[in-house]
Amino acid sequence: MSEYDDAIRLAPGSGADQRTGTFHADWMIGNAVNGGLVMAAALTALGEHLAADPAEATRHVDPVVLSAYFMTASQPGPFTATTEVMRCGRALSTGQVSIAQPSAEGEAVERMRAIASFGNLDDVEVQRQSDPPDMPPPEQCVGADQAPPDFLAHARFLERLDLRLDPATAGWAMGRPSMQGVMRGWLRLRDGREPDTTLLLLALDALPPVAFDLGLFGWTPTLEFTGHVRRRPAPGWLRVALSSENLGGGMMEEDARIWDSTGALVAQSRQLCGVRPAPAGG
Amino acid sequence: MSEYDDAIRLAPGSGADQRTGTFHADWMIGNAVNGGLVMAAALTALGEHLAADPAEATRHVDPVVLSAYFMTASQPGPFTATTEVMRCGRALSTGQVSIAQPSAEGEAVERMRAIASFGNLDDVEVQRQSDPPDMPPPEQCVGADQAPPDFLAHARFLERLDLRLDPATAGWAMGRPSMQGVMRGWLRLRDGREPDTTLLLLALDALPPVAFDLGLFGWTPTLEFTGHVRRRPAPGWLRVALSSENLGGGMMEEDARIWDSTGALVAQSRQLCGVRPAPAGG
Repeated sequence: MSEYDDAIRLAPGSGADQRTGTFHADWMIGNAVNGGLVMAAALTALGEHLAADPAEATRHVDPVVLSAYFMTASQPGPFTATTEVMRCGRALSTGQVSIAQPSAEGEAVERMRAIASFGNLDDVEVQRQSDPPDMPPPEQCVGADQAPPDFLAHARFLERLDLRLDPATAGWAMGRPSMQGVMRGWLRLRDGREPDTTLLLLALDALPPVAFDLGLFGWTPTLEFTGHVRRRPAPGWLRVALSSENLGGGMMEEDARIWDSTGALVAQSRQLCGVRPAPAGG
Repeated sequence: MSEYDDAIRLAPGSGADQRTGTFHADWMIGNAVNGGLVMAAALTALGEHLAADPAEATRHVDPVVLSAYFMTASQPGPFTATTEVMRCGRALSTGQVSIAQPSAEGEAVERMRAIASFGNLDDVEVQRQSDPPDMPPPEQCVGADQAPPDFLAHARFLERLDLRLDPATAGWAMGRPSMQGVMRGWLRLRDGREPDTTLLLLALDALPPVAFDLGLFGWTPTLEFTGHVRRRPAPGWLRVALSSENLGGGMMEEDARIWDSTGALVAQSRQLCGVRPAPAGG
């Protein structure tokens, strides 16, 4: 089993709407478990709940859209996913999922709540799409292992990935951000696990914050994240491109797009992030 | 009272978490009440629930982000808004709201469910923003009253607005869509009611579908809609720009951006729409 599959593996909980799992410190970034992993685990729980209905089991198997609100930082340790099926329609089935972890006093603390719709992305024909960005091949890009040691020390999550940033958008790592608010790179899981539609939610939130390319090195917590999955990805490298246009009042948006190895756009997202001051002396 | 304020006016329901209102046929577009009005009413309910807490009453008064999932089409008649406060944090307060209407048999049918965060957008300084689009002044743009009569007959909602489309993106009304997937125009409420942060959610979903500019004249129901509000709008005209890059598998995204009369970006959104075949002989 891949370490990704292990990280999102769920066990039955106390009812049809509950599943349990464990977040590992291996997936931390800064002082929290990576939000993309939390979303992938949440989608897995909701997908399993839907599939428990025989009428749904083989029908709406792909997450198509998810909106997640992050309330507190997920920590290594056990979590509970509580799901609700809201509506099973012809094209989409929609539900809600909440991820909670026990506090030191044993009370459930909600980490994230999301609404998501599942559909079927078998044989989707692309009629119109954003062009994939031009990038040097992966072997001419900058590996995440070349990031500043200060950053890597708090980014064990990056060790799960094979991430190669386009040198044109990796200047921030050498103290020379482009100030354009863009970042792009090649991405795959280090353990060779091929992408599927659920993994795309992780991939949409896997690159370093686009804020780094604006010279903003403080914490940029995700407040809200919405991702659209448009196709099942082909095996191989994913191309991920981030951008941001609007910053003010301590908030910014981060847009992400992903193309698969055939050049098809497979997912896109926008998140609203907080922009916190950089740590002193960082 | 403006007709907009009247349309989102709520009365206390059966508990602290319930409020009731009435959707009017005046706000219909096609066979449904406009989704933007449904979102504005839902945000009003959640905002009132938050403000009922004395600690919150004057603190987080602006909707900052909302993600709405539309399950069934809202119809003229009474509705109930059920709210839940999920977390009151330092910068944001987050909650959930569901809009339901009774079926012919009197059972509650959920129309829309949303998660939203409120904050305080007093004195937001813009550090970086998308430029507003160049457009001819409103008096040189195309009024919605020049749309095809077939379209207007099913768009009473448009009578609530003063909407002036840039002629460069209004060719679809004369059978010549630009095929670029863009639309832009000036927008204000017909009754002169000035914009506020809640009204921006209505404005983000008020223009004709951007699909029209791709020659797609079928129904494009909103499946999911996420809007970010970044500033309180100044009084006067809003500039709204729509775009779409990705279409396939019967789905497309529609992105919207709004600038106020001072040229400040005040809100942006992305929605995932279904793309249905055009009616025969339409």
